[in-house]
Amino acid sequence: MSHVLSPAVLDQLFGQARSNHHFLEQPVEESTIRQLYDLLKWGPTAFNGQPARYLFIQSAEARQKLLPALSAGNRDKTAAAPLTVVVAFDPAFHQQLPEQFPAYDAKGFYDGLPQLIEPHARTNASLQAAYLILAARSLGLDAGPMAGFDAAAVDAAFFPDGQWRSLLLINLGYGDHAALPARGPRLAFEQAVALV
Amino acid sequence: MSHVLSPAVLDQLFGQARSNHHFLEQPVEESTIRQLYDLLKWGPTAFNGQPARYLFIQSAEARQKLLPALSAGNRDKTAAAPLTVVVAFDPAFHQQLPEQFPAYDAKGFYDGLPQLIEPHARTNASLQAAYLILAARSLGLDAGPMAGFDAAAVDAAFFPDGQWRSLLLINLGYGDHAALPARGPRLAFEQAVALV
Repeated sequence: MSHVLSPAVLDQLFGQARSNHHFLEQPVEESTIRQLYDLLKWGPTAFNGQPARYLFIQSAEARQKLLPALSAGNRDKTAAAPLTVVVAFDPAFHQQLPEQFPAYDAKGFYDGLPQLIEPHARTNASLQAAYLILAARSLGLDAGPMAGFDAAAVDAAFFPDGQWRSLLLINLGYGDHAALPARGPRLAFEQAVALV
Repeated sequence: MSHVLSPAVLDQLFGQARSNHHFLEQPVEESTIRQLYDLLKWGPTAFNGQPARYLFIQSAEARQKLLPALSAGNRDKTAAAPLTVVVAFDPAFHQQLPEQFPAYDAKGFYDGLPQLIEPHARTNASLQAAYLILAARSLGLDAGPMAGFDAAAVDAAFFPDGQWRSLLLINLGYGDHAALPARGPRLAFEQAVALV
């Protein structure tokens, strides 16, 4: 039965959680990457379409390929991160709908309509990027999402055949919380919410 | 200090959580809506831009205005839901960047460039929609996200001056778990993940 999670858990997920790009030396093991996927995969997507794909950059060689595609402000911190994930989407995700959503011919809804496929994939893969961030926090990891990069350059470096298309980068690791700057503000309830 | 959350918590958030559109009679109080916002607001967005806006539909009158904009398959379940939130984005979100992100002139980066503003707003408001779903689960609520609606019709009904633009609808309430159909599959690790 679901209930309100404890204040400590709510703080770990939301209230005290911070984007972070400064990490301890502790590596992120492949078993943790598998646990991360085994949590985030359960997050909901339209027609259970799961368009997101995840390229985990572990090796120094792959990291060197990534760095030139980053905006200048993201380069040094990403060079030093233990793990970086390229959250991407698969522009052919709808080919898997017959297995993933057997209840309805959703593949037929998308076939041959790239003007539907790409917005669907971007919106739902963005939801999945957020599931990854919160799943990482659930596993005691810190996440540092980055929009400042050249998506075409990342795609050319890692997805030259167009098989996946990059959407968001996220540095991952065990955070050094001493290095965090002051937290930014947030919009007040009345600025962001309306009740009717 | 962050650590791996308990199996029961991971199940509530991910492993056993389900999209649900069948709810108990129990209403969702305004105090719970405020708690929900006070959690989800902490989720990260680019430049702390927070483009998402949330229209919570509580009254029967507002619900009647919403229903014609829904696809046929979403109408009955939404008519019966205790609470529905229209997750939207504010196309003028960048006007708040000087207060929300004082470190850098990010407003100047977007001013007069609608071709940058809208994709930024859609991607980041989608992240925020996912924060809302997981914040709802953290408070013991069930969420039923819906992409099947006519966004232009929702906008005409609720945002006639173009102040907000709808992105995703989510039914919210205390779920009737007896009514859930079988769960859909998920892509295997090897189908969705690559390590380099």
